[in-house]
Amino acid sequence: MEILFIGDVVGSPGRAMVQEYLSKLKRKYRPHVTIINGENAAGGRGITEQIYKQFLEAGANAVTLGNHAWDNKDIFEFIDEAKYLVRPANYPEGTPGKGLTFVKINSIEVAIINLHGRTFMTALDCPFNKAQELINLAKKRTNIIFVDFHAETTSEKQAMGWFLDGKATAVIGTHTHVQTADHRILPNGTAYLTDVGMTGPYDEILGMEKGAVIQKFRTALPVRFEVPKSGRAQLSACLVSADPETGTAKKIRPILINDDHPFLDE
Amino acid sequence: MEILFIGDVVGSPGRAMVQEYLSKLKRKYRPHVTIINGENAAGGRGITEQIYKQFLEAGANAVTLGNHAWDNKDIFEFIDEAKYLVRPANYPEGTPGKGLTFVKINSIEVAIINLHGRTFMTALDCPFNKAQELINLAKKRTNIIFVDFHAETTSEKQAMGWFLDGKATAVIGTHTHVQTADHRILPNGTAYLTDVGMTGPYDEILGMEKGAVIQKFRTALPVRFEVPKSGRAQLSACLVSADPETGTAKKIRPILINDDHPFLDE
Amino acid sequence: MEILFIGDVVGSPGRAMVQEYLSKLKRKYRPHVTIINGENAAGGRGITEQIYKQFLEAGANAVTLGNHAWDNKDIFEFIDEAKYLVRPANYPEGTPGKGLTFVKINSIEVAIINLHGRTFMTALDCPFNKAQELINLAKKRTNIIFVDFHAETTSEKQAMGWFLDGKATAVIGTHTHVQTADHRILPNGTAYLTDVGMTGPYDEILGMEKGAVIQKFRTALPVRFEVPKSGRAQLSACLVSADPETGTAKKIRPILINDDHPFLDE
Amino acid sequence: MEILFIGDVVGSPGRAMVQEYLSKLKRKYRPHVTIINGENAAGGRGITEQIYKQFLEAGANAVTLGNHAWDNKDIFEFIDEAKYLVRPANYPEGTPGKGLTFVKINSIEVAIINLHGRTFMTALDCPFNKAQELINLAKKRTNIIFVDFHAETTSEKQAMGWFLDGKATAVIGTHTHVQTADHRILPNGTAYLTDVGMTGPYDEILGMEKGAVIQKFRTALPVRFEVPKSGRAQLSACLVSADPETGTAKKIRPILINDDHPFLDE
Ligand SMILES: [Fe+2]
Ligand SMILES: [Fe+2]
Ligand SMILES: [Fe+2]
Ligand SMILES: [Fe+2]
Ligand SMILES: [Fe+2]
Ligand SMILES: [Fe+2]
Ligand SMILES: [Fe+2]
Ligand SMILES: [Fe+2]
Repeated sequence: MEILFIGDVVGSPGRAMVQEYLSKLKRKYRPHVTIINGENAAGGRGITEQIYKQFLEAGANAVTLGNHAWDNKDIFEFIDEAKYLVRPANYPEGTPGKGLTFVKINSIEVAIINLHGRTFMTALDCPFNKAQELINLAKKRTNIIFVDFHAETTSEKQAMGWFLDGKATAVIGTHTHVQTADHRILPNGTAYLTDVGMTGPYDEILGMEKGAVIQKFRTALPVRFEVPKSGRAQLSACLVSADPETGTAKKIRPILINDDHPFLDE
Repeated sequence: MEILFIGDVVGSPGRAMVQEYLSKLKRKYRPHVTIINGENAAGGRGITEQIYKQFLEAGANAVTLGNHAWDNKDIFEFIDEAKYLVRPANYPEGTPGKGLTFVKINSIEVAIINLHGRTFMTALDCPFNKAQELINLAKKRTNIIFVDFHAETTSEKQAMGWFLDGKATAVIGTHTHVQTADHRILPNGTAYLTDVGMTGPYDEILGMEKGAVIQKFRTALPVRFEVPKSGRAQLSACLVSADPETGTAKKIRPILINDDHPFLDE
Repeated sequence: MEILFIGDVVGSPGRAMVQEYLSKLKRKYRPHVTIINGENAAGGRGITEQIYKQFLEAGANAVTLGNHAWDNKDIFEFIDEAKYLVRPANYPEGTPGKGLTFVKINSIEVAIINLHGRTFMTALDCPFNKAQELINLAKKRTNIIFVDFHAETTSEKQAMGWFLDGKATAVIGTHTHVQTADHRILPNGTAYLTDVGMTGPYDEILGMEKGAVIQKFRTALPVRFEVPKSGRAQLSACLVSADPETGTAKKIRPILINDDHPFLDE
Repeated sequence: MEILFIGDVVGSPGRAMVQEYLSKLKRKYRPHVTIINGENAAGGRGITEQIYKQFLEAGANAVTLGNHAWDNKDIFEFIDEAKYLVRPANYPEGTPGKGLTFVKINSIEVAIINLHGRTFMTALDCPFNKAQELINLAKKRTNIIFVDFHAETTSEKQAMGWFLDGKATAVIGTHTHVQTADHRILPNGTAYLTDVGMTGPYDEILGMEKGAVIQKFRTALPVRFEVPKSGRAQLSACLVSADPETGTAKKIRPILINDDHPFLDE
């Protein structure tokens, strides 16, 4: 059981990378399930129904979100009908959408959970308790449980990895938009990566026009961040290989595609 | 001109890794200059004079610090005499120690600058202005300028990288204790890596005993974090190759040594 | 039904003010219930069993806490037995102690709830949901419900006041250690005050030695804050008058005792 | 020398209060100088040139700002020409506008300084150093120095008060929109008040529609805050009396006008 996870897709440059490489990645790695984090897909801020559907058509089985989930107001119109769209599960009860979904591949189910950190982020319900609760729920249907933990700090992400070691198939971080080099299989069989990184502009800052971001840091004045329309782009992802019966991860492989790491068809 | 930089050394497990591998790394990569971030070297909190001297004896030419610089009160006794100890330069005027030092290798000087981020961190002077100011100063003596930017967020770190592109030889991040996979040479010749990662316990959280960290996140009660004395360890570093005349970086190579990435003598 | 509430008692100067003035305040205002916030009572950091008992002996019926509740480790030894000690209720399930207690005065019960904000503070469970839940519980026994909301920002505190207007008898803020001038009865009958203020040193900063605090702001270096043993002190409190049947507040009166506002026996 | 300072005027309800009461306040208290904090004057977000001029016409001699200074983009068009408009002085060098201005009343000059805190706020230059620097500058022309310290925490504000005690005539806080009850003359003659409070809607949260603010806290979803157009309003201010020669404050008197504290013509 191979799971492909593509990190935060930012704006049209990010979506273009998905269009260009997802089929190639599928040919090369033959994932059974593909998951995309789409919290920045619409101009860097949220997602639209159209983009969500494009992701599914391009070959994704599920789309996860994060703190930017709600930036594009469209979300409130379609999230409750979007079966394979997962928002952070630890938003308070009553929040539109859901934080856990199931994807059926052949006869095997894969549970996909999205969680949101609390350190240097908005106060939500405890992501650790929510993780435990949803994994208990998911376990009734499947052992293959993929967790996208959208969080700022390495400590909170590593804490989630170790907390879920042996309970989830994979705990992969998103949000900081830079792939980390610490992919590993934890002792009890959970694949872990602090951050999978971002899919979008390669020569900017987290996908946003770098001049504006630098100006913001230097002046403290309001600056509007935009995703540049042109320029080089990258794709950040990882591939988790797991035992389909036990859900135990066997291998995790980071994937980076950019001009410094060109895609090799093999 | 090869510069070896070893990321945040945490406690005795981190120092043991330096003792075990620094000579091997030197044999393998033949760096002209070796720099160690030592902000967590004394039990995870600060550094002592003894440890600083051990680092120099072990082969380091300079030691950088970060937000934990002052955790061990010894620092105030020896920082002003420690010629090759650099603390974040953007602490306010009057702070003990210095933020820029020079190391002379054969007849070539290397400037070493330490800076501290401001996002989700203590308010200090502007690191961008201070970087510019110190680079102007250093340029009078050398073109080889190494910057350790100790910061929390990927955005502030990337902003510094792009801001200093073409001005510094290398801008390497520290503080988050997880090596990132985005090492690259920026268009104007600056080597960049968002975070070089940590040197210390491999099966804990940022080097601190993981049970305590998880407990802290789950209970919000006070918990004392300690560096475990035993267990597997890792070393995180990078090697920057630069033109000794122009200071332009030619190559940056990440280094990770742990049970999943064993050291190969070649 | 008169409720006297004394704000954050800081260290021995604060406790001395309670000893000196509580009996005078009782003589003057004849409160049926007296509540003291004691999160800083032991040297500015937490509370001991001895101090808790001193407060009860001095005439308090209940003691509330805040983010400093756990600073003095003694708390873990006695909190579960301390019937009239209330810690923030929105700490996660399983936290020692309780967030709601009842005091019986003649045949009337008063419910006392302590809650903890989340803005610029540690992530806890939602204080608004917890408030609602505990008020529903308390309402089964009494209509007189006193809420000490320990929070940093005026917005979160006002939000709680308006959210509980008509549900609680009083929503009084603590934590910022400066009494605010906005005491009022909200339209549905809840007495509200953004912060009741602090009881302790009058010529320091939040009760801590001012030189150290200023030094901290100016140098960003570690500084140990201490409560000065000598010097002038103040007492900050408020008096809420409520209908004992309905729990509706009729009046709220701020109390400040210091050299600029001397206590008047009449 | 009487100085009247009116706290953060929020939107049209706040401006209407200024229109209605400033002349009455002038008649009653006969201030020589009137200063208004106008950072929220334009719909809660920033200020326009028209509003700035209305304030001057209504009788203000100077207008101070805060973190919201830049919210209304108009500011960049007129701030450099607005002689009596003061933005936080510790924005980095090169920021439009100025942080110190002088008002001449009869033959006496009054210096007006605006500063911005750094705790739980955007990283700017050190407000303490900047205060010292500007006071040194101002002292060459006058001893009457009024400081509006726009900051979040009571500790940073009190630290500024004590730091400037004997150097400034008054250190008055703004930003938290709730008047505090700690007005006093510090031992060396500086009038101090942690926060002067807000001028605008009386039945909302910091001047913004309360339902939206509560919803934000409870749901963590994006909510647009608006200043309600109708409803009861309040005015928050203070009056500082100082020796015109020495600049030493003699008295500080808080002013609150709302339905619970009606304005008395005498
Ligand atoms: Fe993202
Ligand atoms: Fe995000
Ligand atoms: Fe570190
Ligand atoms: Fe650090
Ligand atoms: Fe307190
Ligand atoms: Fe507190
Ligand atoms: Fe304001
Ligand atoms: Fe403000």
